[in-house]
Amino acid sequence: MTSNPRITLAKLPEGSNGLQGLPMPGEHLILDQTRTIDLDNVPLNGGFLTKTIFLSPEPALRERMRDSSIQSYTTSFIVGAPVIGFGLVVVLRSEKKGIKTGDYMYGQTPWEAYTIQPYIEGRINFKPEDWPPATFDMDSLALQVVPNPGGAFPVTHYASALGTPGLSAFVGFEGLAQAKEGQTIFVSAGGSGVGSMVVQLAKQKGMKVIASAGSNAKCDYVRSLGADVVFNYKEDGYDVLKQHKPIHLYWDNVGGEALEAAIEHLEPFGRVVCCGSLSDYNKAPSERYGIKNTTLIFKKRLTLTGFLVPDLIPQYGGRFFTEIPALLAQGKIKSREVVFQGIDSAPRALLAVLNGGEDAGKVVVMVAKE
Amino acid sequence: MTSNPRITLAKLPEGSNGLQGLPMPGEHLILDQTRTIDLDNVPLNGGFLTKTIFLSPEPALRERMRDSSIQSYTTSFIVGAPVIGFGLVVVLRSEKKGIKTGDYMYGQTPWEAYTIQPYIEGRINFKPEDWPPATFDMDSLALQVVPNPGGAFPVTHYASALGTPGLSAFVGFEGLAQAKEGQTIFVSAGGSGVGSMVVQLAKQKGMKVIASAGSNAKCDYVRSLGADVVFNYKEDGYDVLKQHKPIHLYWDNVGGEALEAAIEHLEPFGRVVCCGSLSDYNKAPSERYGIKNTTLIFKKRLTLTGFLVPDLIPQYGGRFFTEIPALLAQGKIKSREVVFQGIDSAPRALLAVLNGGEDAGKVVVMVAKE
Repeated sequence: MTSNPRITLAKLPEGSNGLQGLPMPGEHLILDQTRTIDLDNVPLNGGFLTKTIFLSPEPALRERMRDSSIQSYTTSFIVGAPVIGFGLVVVLRSEKKGIKTGDYMYGQTPWEAYTIQPYIEGRINFKPEDWPPATFDMDSLALQVVPNPGGAFPVTHYASALGTPGLSAFVGFEGLAQAKEGQTIFVSAGGSGVGSMVVQLAKQKGMKVIASAGSNAKCDYVRSLGADVVFNYKEDGYDVLKQHKPIHLYWDNVGGEALEAAIEHLEPFGRVVCCGSLSDYNKAPSERYGIKNTTLIFKKRLTLTGFLVPDLIPQYGGRFFTEIPALLAQGKIKSREVVFQGIDSAPRALLAVLNGGEDAGKVVVMVAKE
Repeated sequence: MTSNPRITLAKLPEGSNGLQGLPMPGEHLILDQTRTIDLDNVPLNGGFLTKTIFLSPEPALRERMRDSSIQSYTTSFIVGAPVIGFGLVVVLRSEKKGIKTGDYMYGQTPWEAYTIQPYIEGRINFKPEDWPPATFDMDSLALQVVPNPGGAFPVTHYASALGTPGLSAFVGFEGLAQAKEGQTIFVSAGGSGVGSMVVQLAKQKGMKVIASAGSNAKCDYVRSLGADVVFNYKEDGYDVLKQHKPIHLYWDNVGGEALEAAIEHLEPFGRVVCCGSLSDYNKAPSERYGIKNTTLIFKKRLTLTGFLVPDLIPQYGGRFFTEIPALLAQGKIKSREVVFQGIDSAPRALLAVLNGGEDAGKVVVMVAKE
């Protein structure tokens, strides 16, 4: 028997509605080391057995840690069950056609060392009629076979440029940004998985890139990606934007003050792509930053458009999976990850993502050697 | 000699930056009765002499009452000069080709009883390089000849359904609303000149219409236009919206709490047309209502788009000038005005517009019998 540690959502983060406060290691997210698994003999029931290589803590996980009665764009987590998120796994045994031992797979998987797939615990029995309209069933983002890089690049790139963050950036940028050569884009959280890809895609299009980040290490990293102007918003605030006008396009990863500043400083007919709202996720709705300059939306004829990745995959996903690996191989796109070691570090790693850690790069939790 | 009373902007409304507080009659806007004009002999210098029939106090006038150093979408007013706004005039004498005695004309004109046109006082010597990009030169909205209704309809309709409010509603609705039969629209300030037209255009398209207004008289009026659900936001607040879901489209005339409520209750993929922000105009930027739920823009994949009327006139203005008079003549579109009598009432009339008066209909100031 082999130990099968996992991370479970023991209780919802603070606040009666479960939308307030950070998920704390040891309190809301706990390491459960009581489980074991017989890797050679556990019945697969027509499925397959996977070993988790890495887990990818992402801001969107926070949204799922809520009471299911609260409407949102995703299904909620089940208290007591393992956290489920994007990860890379390798197949140990399979009874399922098309999936074989040694396959690398990327997609939603429980935060545990070994899993009989499709996973059962934590999965929502999704009936659309039980959820608000257009709620997205996260469990539908099932594991897909991906190439084994065989040493050509670090597997952790699957959590960053080649994973959901890269995909989010690519489909949103291609679908909504209307990028124009010679124009200027402002990207908040420029050092994040999504932000760092947007910075690079914008440079590829010939744009001037302004980016914000939350530490000097992150600023250095974003500069190394080619951004023309980078500032530490914690030190400089967002008013620095007015020194770098004109600004035509804003990619919003954080909401709040950054969104307000962008609205303030965008050119007439400026565009905002709303991709995320990192500054809001851990605050109760009443405690969020209030944006006071929305009157500028009509005065400057701005357009703000929000998107979720699944909406745009049918149209732009195919190009992502062919173009980005090629650009990465040619060195035209870079991907950097901050690696946390061991599944026990996963709650801390998520906290670093939600709190804005110091280190530059997409946070990844390595669970096993390949 | 004939008396030629006028309304001048004596000083900017309260606040160091001129963007705060209401313009008060007798303080910021004053009646100047010292002027006379010799209607028969005053030199026209190739221009034409007009008698003002009515003036149209509109929310956008407030934006012009600011220091010219403050960026906005329009040129500013000149302190000491007459207020300039949309109005209907009749030509008394003309030396200008194409314009003859008896012509009715609609467009920007000074708030005075008689004017030698093109007016000189209050006009900005507009050089685009002296203004922020895309500042609109209001003086370019020059008087245009319009049909003399000859009793077929009240001339005041030129201030409402057949004037700038109707035009704003029409070009914005046709250009940006993507109205769909069977869907639901929420219109704030449903009894306003713009709002009342949007309500009617939406009903023409087969939409369900929810509207808010600020008095019971206005609510009754909006119901008479065919709106399906009407509420007094001062009594009921905006939470009433959640009882009338689904809502697919929001036409924003007021900003602030109404915009926040609409974002809260719109369906996924909902749309917002940002036309005005009446709740903000008389407040300093720091005192405006802070919208805390912008995170829903991406979660619900909303699109917010602002517009100014001149942007859309080239594409949709032609249809307005043919379709709306015909619909009005057929009784399929209604127009109602609240008439203030005499040019001395103009400052009070503007205050009623900015404060939200009790009476239902577009506010018009009758300056002369036709």
